[in-house]
Amino acid sequence: MADKVILLDFYPSMFGMRARVALAVKGVDYEHREEDLQNKSQLLLESNPVYKEIPVLVHNNNPVCGSFIIVQYIDEVWKDQSPTLLPCDPYQRAQARFLADYIDKKVMETGNWIWSEEGQEKEAGKKGFVEILKQMESELGDKPFFGGNAFGFLDVALVTYSPWFQTYETCGSFSIEQNYPKLSSWVKRCLEIESVSKSLADPDNVYNFYSTLKKKKRGL
Amino acid sequence: MADKVILLDFYPSMFGMRARVALAVKGVDYEHREEDLQNKSQLLLESNPVYKEIPVLVHNNNPVCGSFIIVQYIDEVWKDQSPTLLPCDPYQRAQARFLADYIDKKVMETGNWIWSEEGQEKEAGKKGFVEILKQMESELGDKPFFGGNAFGFLDVALVTYSPWFQTYETCGSFSIEQNYPKLSSWVKRCLEIESVSKSLADPDNVYNFYSTLKKKKRGL
Repeated sequence: MADKVILLDFYPSMFGMRARVALAVKGVDYEHREEDLQNKSQLLLESNPVYKEIPVLVHNNNPVCGSFIIVQYIDEVWKDQSPTLLPCDPYQRAQARFLADYIDKKVMETGNWIWSEEGQEKEAGKKGFVEILKQMESELGDKPFFGGNAFGFLDVALVTYSPWFQTYETCGSFSIEQNYPKLSSWVKRCLEIESVSKSLADPDNVYNFYSTLKKKKRGL
Repeated sequence: MADKVILLDFYPSMFGMRARVALAVKGVDYEHREEDLQNKSQLLLESNPVYKEIPVLVHNNNPVCGSFIIVQYIDEVWKDQSPTLLPCDPYQRAQARFLADYIDKKVMETGNWIWSEEGQEKEAGKKGFVEILKQMESELGDKPFFGGNAFGFLDVALVTYSPWFQTYETCGSFSIEQNYPKLSSWVKRCLEIESVSKSLADPDNVYNFYSTLKKKKRGL
């Protein structure tokens, strides 16, 4: 029986993008279903009854939820299809898992403050965001990708924030490229991989999504 | 070279207990170092500069942080020492990871409300706590352990909360055994495994720890 793979997704979501990138770099065929988050599908509600959130990967009717859990699942199920996303060495795997979790805790939180808050909160968001980019740039060092020479798990974890960089920069009045040239080169390097670039949201589209959200928040 | 394994830990911590249980069931020799959380060791501050939290497993000078990351690391490094904690099947692995994460988000949060809050917050904590126990009991079903016949990853994840049950029950005035007989039998089954029971904190000791914390909170 051929594999039936469905991804329940939402275009601008960095979490959804992770599943798209992992499936694409592994060359896994799948059906993409865009969710209307105001009117979620029955399949989403049934597949993720705990959080009712995207992304959900439904593989032969078995739902897998949570972006990093999905990426690890894809890496394990299609283990013979390169690239292998998680490093083979247990210590490097542990480091990758730790940093991925850290990215989610910090980039998401501080990024949200930049685009949704004003005043002190916005400034705190900028400070925290800049701090983590600095840390990630030092983690990258002179390697082409986070895991070394090949695109891997940590690259998936962070590159899906890059379509949001333009929004963060505009809202926070700062330049990532100017302050973090190595990290910017790394983003460009990732985008040279066609399966990665085609899976990421368009930054203008993300900015439009943000603008709509912001207007809604203001009650406009 | 023999492995040098050090665990930086704090006795009543459910996160620290996870590392202790995983090391003990695998039969890994290690040096246990109890941390004074008011005066953390240099090794802890250097090994986990991001969060400065226990548990940290320092294996041949390489620090691994975060309880589930540590348990997976132990499972991968000592993979030839039974039991294998994570299931072999990718879908079951994904389910175990999802539920472990859910346990941490919900049991910790609701449990904390029960022992540290009063009034509406305490009641909300009780409601949420009871809800997740119900869910976990249904997840266990009639199996001896969460993964089936053998003690595994999800058992490690949840059993380390059991030394706190007495504290939750006393503070919340409810009985886990009466309401969740299957879950209570599962705890007893886990405690019959000597390496598990010797790694868990003593419930009376946890209760004393809670009482001290509570007094400090009240400024007594």
